[in-house]
This record gives sequence, structure tokens and C-alpha cells, in this order.
Amino acid sequence: MESIQPILQSVHQASVQTRQLTDEQKQHLLLDIAKNIDDHIDVIVGENSKDLARMDDGDPKKDRLLLNPARLKDIAQSVRDVAQLEDPTGKLLYTHVAENGLKIERITAPMGVVGVIYESRPNVTIDVVALCLRAGNAVILRGGSDAEASNKILVNLVHQALSKNGLFTEMIQLLPTDRKFVKELLEADKYVDIIIPRGSQTLINFVRDNSRVPTIETGAGVCHTFVDSYADLYKAAQIVINAKTHRPSVCNALDTIIIHSKIAEKFIPLLKEGFASFDVEIFADESSYPIFLSNGFSHLQHAGDESFGMEYLSQKCSVKVVSDIEEALAHIRKYSSKHSEAIVSENNEHIVKFLNEVDAAAVYANASTRFTDGGVFGLGAEIGISTQKLHARGPFALEKLTTEKWIIHGNGQIR
Amino acid sequence: MESIQPILQSVHQASVQTRQLTDEQKQHLLLDIAKNIDDHIDVIVGENSKDLARMDDGDPKKDRLLLNPARLKDIAQSVRDVAQLEDPTGKLLYTHVAENGLKIERITAPMGVVGVIYESRPNVTIDVVALCLRAGNAVILRGGSDAEASNKILVNLVHQALSKNGLFTEMIQLLPTDRKFVKELLEADKYVDIIIPRGSQTLINFVRDNSRVPTIETGAGVCHTFVDSYADLYKAAQIVINAKTHRPSVCNALDTIIIHSKIAEKFIPLLKEGFASFDVEIFADESSYPIFLSNGFSHLQHAGDESFGMEYLSQKCSVKVVSDIEEALAHIRKYSSKHSEAIVSENNEHIVKFLNEVDAAAVYANASTRFTDGGVFGLGAEIGISTQKLHARGPFALEKLTTEKWIIHGNGQIR
Repeated sequence: MESIQPILQSVHQASVQTRQLTDEQKQHLLLDIAKNIDDHIDVIVGENSKDLARMDDGDPKKDRLLLNPARLKDIAQSVRDVAQLEDPTGKLLYTHVAENGLKIERITAPMGVVGVIYESRPNVTIDVVALCLRAGNAVILRGGSDAEASNKILVNLVHQALSKNGLFTEMIQLLPTDRKFVKELLEADKYVDIIIPRGSQTLINFVRDNSRVPTIETGAGVCHTFVDSYADLYKAAQIVINAKTHRPSVCNALDTIIIHSKIAEKFIPLLKEGFASFDVEIFADESSYPIFLSNGFSHLQHAGDESFGMEYLSQKCSVKVVSDIEEALAHIRKYSSKHSEAIVSENNEHIVKFLNEVDAAAVYANASTRFTDGGVFGLGAEIGISTQKLHARGPFALEKLTTEKWIIHGNGQIR
Repeated sequence: MESIQPILQSVHQASVQTRQLTDEQKQHLLLDIAKNIDDHIDVIVGENSKDLARMDDGDPKKDRLLLNPARLKDIAQSVRDVAQLEDPTGKLLYTHVAENGLKIERITAPMGVVGVIYESRPNVTIDVVALCLRAGNAVILRGGSDAEASNKILVNLVHQALSKNGLFTEMIQLLPTDRKFVKELLEADKYVDIIIPRGSQTLINFVRDNSRVPTIETGAGVCHTFVDSYADLYKAAQIVINAKTHRPSVCNALDTIIIHSKIAEKFIPLLKEGFASFDVEIFADESSYPIFLSNGFSHLQHAGDESFGMEYLSQKCSVKVVSDIEEALAHIRKYSSKHSEAIVSENNEHIVKFLNEVDAAAVYANASTRFTDGGVFGLGAEIGISTQKLHARGPFALEKLTTEKWIIHGNGQIR
């Protein structure tokens, strides 16, 4: 294949039908997709095994690539869950009657064509298809070559469900994995309305730097928890231990503990047991290092400049001692990736100050940053956590796969 | 100056103060800015005359550059109008209580630092400053070198008002006009949250293609009006004449008339008088050309391929005859820039179909497309009309100079 222009044109053309699907049609279609996955688990596992066979056993991506019956049942169920979510389109956001009698409304409408560029996780294929169809969008998928056979069978099963419902299969398209087509996709602002990169920071940076199509970044989380002098220290220790150790590989996990100097001596020992059971490695600044040392923490290092503003994604964290809330806020301002930030304090003035001043997608008082998640926030399944400020900030869920549209009813008004 | 890094850092730093301004402080500040403009009209006119002196008399930009006392009074009044608009920040958009008792809120918050790149209109300087400050944002301005003296005096007057209010003048910064600094600004995603290009399509394309900072495009309008076979033809003629001739140089003016074949013979003569008084030049397709000709229209040309999808910005338009609404929709799909589109019809089914299917920022039934405007839509002053689908679509007004922020109150919740 020389060019993906015919694919881009056909998905754009099919999006006209997609945007007109009724709530009922969309629900029905998603239930059929879920059933078709459930009914073809053996076939999918068979195709997936071809992809797995091509990957080295030691490769850490192998687990992400794996589709087994249990995972496939979960995937089918998540499609049913998306079917149950409220239709995000056609919602009335605003009305206004102009002096000349024009009736002006702003409503939510399908985005159009959503492009997703991702790596070796084939479950993304179905997650994205379900959310995009629910919002009336056509989809163009560019998965990793590692998962080619898995993605092909999954998209085939989606196409079967589309055909069964009398719909154009062109509304869901899987691109060939040749690298040159990624560039073509990123320049297709005539046919594609939004591109979402899902994967490594390298992928995200590449897409942002090369795309003419608007993108939504679901970026890194450099997350801080500030333990104030007014904190309930026991509560603070529980929160910090949970935020660090519960699932360190995800973006809302803690990276840096900021501790008020007044309570550092008392607070630090409370972390010992919890951190020891997960072998947490600590990069301590000058003030906190002697305290950790005298309390017998193992895995202790001196923090360097590179220890702050670092997303560890593992059982490691840095520690910074500050003399007041202003210094804590300045540290966060300097190093935060604007994802999730927390204060632990019983002082209401400090809580309000922190919540107001910290510029991040999610700002917490007295809770673990691990809760930044579409499901917890009541939005349902999400595509990722957006750390940018336009359009979607925080969990990027179904509602944000729509755009707005102004509808104006007149009876001959002229200007 | 070698680099604008110090300016970028200081505006970012100052935005911490800007985001904490109360509604009252912001109103007070804007009224002081308005007063300071009113009080220094002679000084501004003097500086503006230096810019005017450097421009050739025949240059069409000269009128855009001109600041006279009447225009300056209007500018000061528009600042007062923005002061009267409701504070767009701190609005509660969504609440949710999680099963574990977490209290989750989504509110509007200041964007942070807004960058604006514009050309020779010095009024943009004050428009942008007023809207951005009202939303709690700091601003970095890059105006054209044509308007350098005018922009400097205006920003000085803003700085005086900031100082009088005990605020950091760094929150409003005017960049030197050297071209190399534009690139530096477009790469400053660490310090600048959004960049808005205001000006020619060339400028907008350059910013979109080179910016690492997210941008909002306020792009071209290729606007169609479809006169259905069910149209009230007299009403349709009034609407078409108004949409074309009222102010052809703006983006919501009509570019192409789409006429149902059934009523073309009756409808076209109704345009004659209105078009004649503005010397409208017509590019007619094969079906409509003989009708225009036999009705004695002057300024008549045969339409070529290039006549459709063209933003004329002058007293010119193209005409396409279609055999049904489907063909009209297909034509719009192919050529629309997704700005403003209209149907004139008394058939409710056709109206609903058109409003649903047309993918544009503003879709009209039985009115002139000339109404796409923040003021008409009840939003107040606007920065432009966004034709993109993320964040802001249609009038890009005060409300969209904010971002969202999730605020979570807990009492020790861990995951």
C-alpha cells in the first residue's frame, strides 16, 4: 500500500453515519460486539498466541500483549459497561434568546473521527472502539506491530457486529503498521478530528511534535504529597504509604514526599514498617537523610537534583523537607507535572490555600493521589489522565469524546 | 536580548498571583485600566502616530493600525464591559461522592499563562489583556512590529494600573518583535499554557505547525446557505443577500449559495436588486448560469472547481444547484470549513436533518450566518470564532479562557 488516503477518506465518510446513530442503536451495537468477543474467545486466543510467539519470553511487554479467556471476558464486560453509560451527545449545555428572537442553543455532538496511536496492548483496541462508538465517533486505530494478529481479529469481530447491525464497517479502521503511515495520519487534519497517543512518553512526545491534528496528551504524573505541620501524622503515614506502594507503576502514584520540618522527626518513623514491606528506596534531602538514617531505614540514598521532578513508576521516592507551606507550594510549582497533588493537614486555612494555589488536574486534601481515575470520579471508563489544560483535564472519559455545536433557530432574521 | 527565557519565567511566576485575584480585585483592576486609557488618549494617539508614520499611505493595514480618540473610547468601554461579565472561574461543574466518602468536585480555574500572537491591530492588545485578566490569567503578547509604539504605550498604561493595585506588572508582558522570539514562545510549553494566533491564515498555519504549546485556531469561514425547495423564497432572498453583502470581509459571511433545482428559476431573480446594489460578482455552476444570464445579472462568471470551498471575504459568491437535500449536505461536507452553515426551509423534517447532520461550529435554520458572534450568542466579547473541535468551538469568549480542575476532599481515604 502506497498511501492511507483511501482509508482516511472512507472513515471520514462513514463518520456521517456514525454521528447519526441513536442511543438505542449504539447500545445495541456495543452489546453485539461484547457478545461476539465472548463467542470467539478461542479464536482470539489463537490469534494472540501468534503475536506472543513472535516476542521474546523475557520481554516485559509480553504480559501487556497477553489475551487469555479471563482477560477477554473482562474486556467484553467493559464493553457492556460502556453501553450502560449515558449517551454523551445531544446534551443541552446552554440556551440564549437574542433580542431579535433568534433561539440559540449549544449542545454536545460527536467529535467525528478519532485517531488512536498505541503500542502493544490489544485491549486498547476494544476499549477505544467502545468509548468512541458510544459517543457517535468513527475510529482509526494504529496499534503496535507486536499485536498485529490480535488487533486484526478483534477489529474483524467488531466489523461482524457492524454488518449484523446494517452499518458501514468503514467506521472502524485498523491501519497497517508501517511507520510511514503514522506520519500520514498525523497530517490528516482534513479527515481526522483528534488524535490520542496512548503509550510511552516517547510516543506521546512524537505525536505532539508532529501532529497537525489536535491531540490530547495523557502524560506523566510527578505526584507530591505534602505532610503539613498540622497533619494527623498517623493518617498522613497511611496516605503516603498507600500513594507510594499500592501500584507504583501507574501515573497517580506518589513520587515525592514533602514534609514540614516541624513534624519530620515524628513523622518519618511512621513510614518505616510500610516502606520496609515493599522495599521502598528513599532519596532523602539533606534535612531528612539523618532522620531516616537514625531510624534505621534501609534502601536510603542522598537525593540529587535529578531526584525531584522524577516520575519513578517503581518503589522509589524522594523526600524534601520544607519550613512552611509556601516552600511546599514553590517546590510543587517547580517540579509538578500537574497531574495529582495532595496535602495532609487538619488546618482548614492551609487546605484551602493548597487546593486553590496548586495548578494540577487533581488536587487532594487528606487522601491518597491513587484515586485519580475515571471510575472513582464517577465518569466510567477512561482513555487516560489528561495533564493538559485544553478540552479535557484529569480523567479523559466518554463525555470528552464529544465536541460542542451551536444550533440556531430563526424565522428570517438578518443583521 | 538573546533569549526571552527570563520573560517567560517571570510571567509564569506572576501567574501565581493572577490566579488568586478575587472577582472584586479583577473588576477593580479592569476599571482602572479603562480609566487610564481614557485619561491618556492624547499620549496614545501620539505614540500611534509614530507607527502610522512608518506605514505607507496605500497600505490596507493602515486603517487597522489607527487609534483615534473615538476608537480609544470604544476600547476603554469594552474593558468596562468585560469587567461587568460574570467571573468565569470557580464555577462548580460537577460533584460526585465516591463510595468511600471522597467528595469530588470539578470546578473552572484560570488557564495560567495565555500567549497571543497577532499582527497590526493594537486594539487586540487591550481586548486580550481585559479578557485574560478577567479569567485570572497572565498574558504574554507578541504584537506586530508595525504597531510597536502603540502596543508599548498601551501595555505601559496597563502596568500603571497593575502597580496602582499593588500587583506584579510581570503578569502582562509584551515581547520584543524580533522574529526569533516567536519560535522560542511556541516552544515554551513549560511556561505558557495556551497560544492563540490572531490574524491571517498564514500566521495561524505557522503557529499550528510550529507550536509545542496547545493552540486555539480561529480559522477561516467557508459558509454555505442552502435554499431548500420548501423555502419561503422571499425570506430566503433576504437572508442570502444579508449573509453575503452586510460585511463581506468577515469570516461568517456567505461564500456559496446552494439552491434546490425545483425553485432555482423562481428564487434567483429575487436576488437581483440586492446583489446589484453591492455589485456582487457571481460564480454560477452550469445549471444556474443560464438563469442568472436570462435574468440580466451583471458580474456573472462560470464557476470553476476553485469557486467552491473558497472564502471570498469580498462581494463575490459561488452558486451550486442541487437536486435534493442529500446533495446539498454532501456539498457542504466536501467544502465546508465547519464555521457557519444555514438552511432556509419551512419543512421541519429537512430542518432537523440539516441541523443534525451538518458538522460545523454553528448551524442555522432560517437566519443569516452573520450572527455567529460572542455578543449575539450571549457570551460577551470574544477573541475569535474557533473552527476546531477541542475545548472551544464557535465564539471563543471569556468562559473558554479557563481550564478545569478536580478538587477532592477526603478524611484519610486510601486505595
